Amino acid sequence: MEQQYSSALLNRAVDEFAKLPGIGRKTAMRLVLHTLRIDADKVDGFCNALHTLRHEVKYCRTCHNISDTDVCQICSNPQRDASTICVVENIQDVMAVESTMQYKGLYHVLGGVISPMDGIGPGDLEIESLVDRVEAGGVKEVILALSSTMEGDTTNFYIYRKLMHHDDVELTVLARGLSINDELQYTDEVTLGRSLVNRVPFKG
Amino acid sequence: MEQQYSSALLNRAVDEFAKLPGIGRKTAMRLVLHTLRIDADKVDGFCNALHTLRHEVKYCRTCHNISDTDVCQICSNPQRDASTICVVENIQDVMAVESTMQYKGLYHVLGGVISPMDGIGPGDLEIESLVDRVEAGGVKEVILALSSTMEGDTTNFYIYRKLMHHDDVELTVLARGLSINDELQYTDEVTLGRSLVNRVPFKG
Repeated sequence: MEQQYSSALLNRAVDEFAKLPGIGRKTAMRLVLHTLRIDADKVDGFCNALHTLRHEVKYCRTCHNISDTDVCQICSNPQRDASTICVVENIQDVMAVESTMQYKGLYHVLGGVISPMDGIGPGDLEIESLVDRVEAGGVKEVILALSSTMEGDTTNFYIYRKLMHHDDVELTVLARGLSINDELQYTDEVTLGRSLVNRVPFKG
Repeated sequence: MEQQYSSALLNRAVDEFAKLPGIGRKTAMRLVLHTLRIDADKVDGFCNALHTLRHEVKYCRTCHNISDTDVCQICSNPQRDASTICVVENIQDVMAVESTMQYKGLYHVLGGVISPMDGIGPGDLEIESLVDRVEAGGVKEVILALSSTMEGDTTNFYIYRKLMHHDDVELTVLARGLSINDELQYTDEVTLGRSLVNRVPFKG
């Protein structure tokens, strides 16, 4: 049962905050009371930023990354290597790869992975548009950078089947193995096994 | 340094969420991406609830609890005992006491405690209005239900000095002692010492 507060306005604001993922009613209350302590124009700024984002958000028509323009800054940047496409699940993953500073190609955001349990099939993802990009030519490598889960592997395999007849396009996946700073004794046996099988020459 | 995302709108929304207490940029990002997945009218409902609360919030003119009306539901309830006033720090504390279902009197929300380190003096709190309520007559007991901290104790003492010449008004504080379910060996020595000094007759 939801607690009723002395003010219906307060109650409604707490209800709304508590709908956000990972925010319970106690945290919601704390956040709402915070908005009562700060200036009204700061609350207006917050609401306005959220409202504007939700109503004016655009996605790049090429890679489906979030963007303020029709084609995103990455896709329209001539410095980036257009012959390489890194396939990721969502826009956070674009940020994660970008933050490594190790990648200079383009992206393709699928919008999820194939997950029959959640009712997500290939048709719900941006897989056809990836195939279109490859068929348009100029692509030498497609890097499958999906999560190392069963759903990720299924999606990798589906994309592989769709692109396998393009002999001129190399399909690669991210290397799996020990994380940097991992201690051997605490590494799970599947990861350790894979690291052993896929061992590489030592570069001193 | 704050990370820049591929969209200025996104960046601004994340900045705004990250200003909320206890919300870092990673959580802010997660919340913002959630608002992109849900329907736009749900985001509008959220913004509207927050905006309405901030601009239309009222505080009870008697006890300063948050209220939709000039006098709150508690102060205007004839079933409540108007001769007892429970002095609390903030509106969460009103909720905490209400949730015990053990109190049928009225409240007085100070809006904080005296804390010279934070620049909060007696003049910043609703202490004068408490004295006015007591001087208006009809009050038999004032319960000081402030936090068991140095600031709380200081505030208790300040209020005591203000009300000490009202011989007809009894000043009480919340009992201090072991929490329910506390194990003796893990109780801090100050609390245990106080519990021992203030021991009460056993009611079998």
